[in-house]
Formats: sequence, C-alpha cells, structure tokens
Amino acid sequence: MTSQAFDTGLPSIRQVQSLIRDQHTVEVKLMTGDMVAGAVSWQDANAICVKADDGRNTILMRGAIAYVKSLS
Amino acid sequence: MTSQAFDTGLPSIRQVQSLIRDQHTVEVKLMTGDMVAGAVSWQDANAICVKADDGRNTILMRGAIAYVKSLS
Amino acid sequence: MTSQAFDTGLPSIRQVQSLIRDQHTVEVKLMTGDMVAGAVSWQDANAICVKADDGRNTILMRGAIAYVKSLS
Amino acid sequence: MTSQAFDTGLPSIRQVQSLIRDQHTVEVKLMTGDMVAGAVSWQDANAICVKADDGRNTILMRGAIAYVKSLS
Amino acid sequence: MTSQAFDTGLPSIRQVQSLIRDQHTVEVKLMTGDMVAGAVSWQDANAICVKADDGRNTILMRGAIAYVKSLS
Amino acid sequence: MTSQAFDTGLPSIRQVQSLIRDQHTVEVKLMTGDMVAGAVSWQDANAICVKADDGRNTILMRGAIAYVKSLS
Repeated sequence: MTSQAFDTGLPSIRQVQSLIRDQHTVEVKLMTGDMVAGAVSWQDANAICVKADDGRNTILMRGAIAYVKSLS
Repeated sequence: MTSQAFDTGLPSIRQVQSLIRDQHTVEVKLMTGDMVAGAVSWQDANAICVKADDGRNTILMRGAIAYVKSLS
Repeated sequence: MTSQAFDTGLPSIRQVQSLIRDQHTVEVKLMTGDMVAGAVSWQDANAICVKADDGRNTILMRGAIAYVKSLS
Repeated sequence: MTSQAFDTGLPSIRQVQSLIRDQHTVEVKLMTGDMVAGAVSWQDANAICVKADDGRNTILMRGAIAYVKSLS
Repeated sequence: MTSQAFDTGLPSIRQVQSLIRDQHTVEVKLMTGDMVAGAVSWQDANAICVKADDGRNTILMRGAIAYVKSLS
Repeated sequence: MTSQAFDTGLPSIRQVQSLIRDQHTVEVKLMTGDMVAGAVSWQDANAICVKADDGRNTILMRGAIAYVKSLS
C-alpha cells in the first residue's frame, strides 16, 4: 500500500477536513480519467471517500487521485 | 512492493472488512480502466481479492485500484 | 499515501516556494494529461495547490504531477 | 524501487506461493494493458516471474501488476 | 511524495551529475508520453530539472520519468 | 523517488545481474508502452540501464518498468 504523510496539520489534510465539515461539493479527478463529484464523507491515510448524489459512497484510493477541486 | 497503512482501525480498511463480512457486491475500478465486480474474499496490505460471478478469485493489487464502490 | 522528501532545502521544494512568493503563473502537467495553469497557493508533502484564473483552488496530488514549468 | 510488504504470512503472498507449487496457469494483467499468461516461476519483494508457453521467463514488476487471476 | 534512494554513489545519480556537468542534451520521456529535451540544470531526491532551448526550466518529477537518454 | 528492495540476494536482482554478465539481449516494456531492447549495462536501486544497438545508454527508471524479458 502506498502511504503519504497523514498529518492533520498539513494544508492538504486540513482543507479536505474543511470540505468534510462544510459538505461542499467537490470534483475529484482520478488517474483513470474518471471525474467523481459529491460531498466528502471521510478521509484517512489510504483514501478519500466521496458520497455521490445517489447516496453511494465511493472509496477513492489516494494513489489514484490526480486532483481535488472545491466547487462552492 | 508499494505499501500503505494497513491499520484495521482506519475507515478504508474497516469498510472493506464490512464488505467481506456482508458479501455485498462491489465494483472495483482499476488504473487500467478495467471494472471488476463481485464479492470481496479477503484483503491484506498488498491486495484486495474479489470473487467474480464465475467463482474465480482475482487478486487486485492495491496500487492498481482507483476506487471501490459498494452496490448494495 | 505516497511520500517524497519534503525538505525545504531541496531545489524542488525551494523553487516552488519562490513561485508561491512571486505568484508567477505556472503550468502543471498531470499524469492524466491535464494541464493546470495558475499561481501556486501552497505546497506540502502531499500536494501542490494551484489557484486558477477563476479563483478556485485545485489541490494537485504530488504523485499525479508530471512536471511544473514557470511561464514568467 | 517501490516496495510492498513481502510477508509470507500474507494471503497475497501465500496464494502466489500456491500457484508456484501447483504450476497452475495464471493471467496477469499489467498497468500497460498487457495480459501475460503462464505458470509462476518465482516471486520476491520486487517482482513475480511468469514462464509463458514459449518457455521464456518474464519478470513482471509488482508496481506494474494490476491483477493476478488463476485459470485453473 | 514518492522517494527513491538519492545516494550520489549510485550510477543513476552519478550519470545525471555528469550530464549536468557536461551540459549534454538529454531526452527525458515522461509517463504522460511527453518527451522533454534540453540540458539538465539540477537534480534532487524529488525531481530532475531540464532547461529547454527556450531557456525555461521544467521541473520533472522523478515518479513521472520513464527514461533519460543522452543524445551526445 | 520510489524505492524497492535492492538486495542482491533477491531473484529479481540476481537475474538482472546475470543478464549484465552474459550481455544477453533483453526486452524491457515500459509503463508508457515503449519497448526498449538491448543489453543491460548496469542496475541500481533506482534504475536499469540498457544499451541499445546504436550504442546509446538509456536509463530506465524502475517505477516505469512493466517487465523485463530475456530474448536469448
């Protein structure tokens, strides 16, 4: 498993925490070219979980994420 | 070998454990663009194993997984 | 999470710090083939954040960055 | 070099050991989209080696493997 | 951030040091398929920087580099 | 930089050492889809260097190598 620095003091982690708290819609672009939109449910060292409009959770592996963009 | 945090307390690991217990059908999208559907047999630090409808196990390497989505 | 050496003494980190200070426009090419242009807002061990012309921040994961090129 | 947990107690390592012992035919899908079929000769922390029908060994780097599927 | 062994005694690091010293033109092929040609300005644990003919520096992330080839 | 186990006792490292000693022609398939053929000049923790028929050395980064296949 690939592992990054999961330090809640880092901007990359804190900004996703804000997105979880505010339930803003985000767009996540994956290395596969897929774009996943929805609210962020949780994050951990391995993944960011996004709940799409159909209410289903998708566990996005960090190594597969190209970028995260807030839409609000 | 790429290695991630395999800590059973992490949401990303716990949620896959629930999928194993409940034998819910999941969709796993790979970095190759392949989509693998089936029930999760097991997970470890390197891989998630999915049993497809033909009963065959496919060992999906974690570094190749883009996302995991529960269908039930 | 993938982790690189985030040592502020390294040229790769220092040059991005200069780009943040000078707010020069950069082009970042991603592994997906996407090109993101804008000013760099911040960097940390996991990501480089670019503010595009529409004022929105895009968190670019380091593992997804192919190159960074200053345009000024 | 990317490195994963090469612990012979892990299911992902043990199942490949069984494939080596039984010389079952496997299909290995690579991140390039290539599919390699044959019997597994050996595995180590960096690679899985597959002997194709022409008797030639191909050293498949673990970071390039998307999945391993037994055909028997 | 992905990290490799940045040990100046390694051939892979020493040969790039020679390319910097001699300012030979190199071709660097990226995982995106892009080919970048120019003289190497510097290298560190995270990146190799190439100055193209237009005099602009491009910071190439090591994880995105497929190969480096000297043209002279 | 991505790093793998560079342990000369591992089969994946030893077999490449044999290829260097015997100067057998190998085919190396890269994640970009490129195929590089030639004799192996050296290997280290970060790269495998192949000398093509034109006598030029190409430093192939390990993270970009999908497989190595001996042709002789």
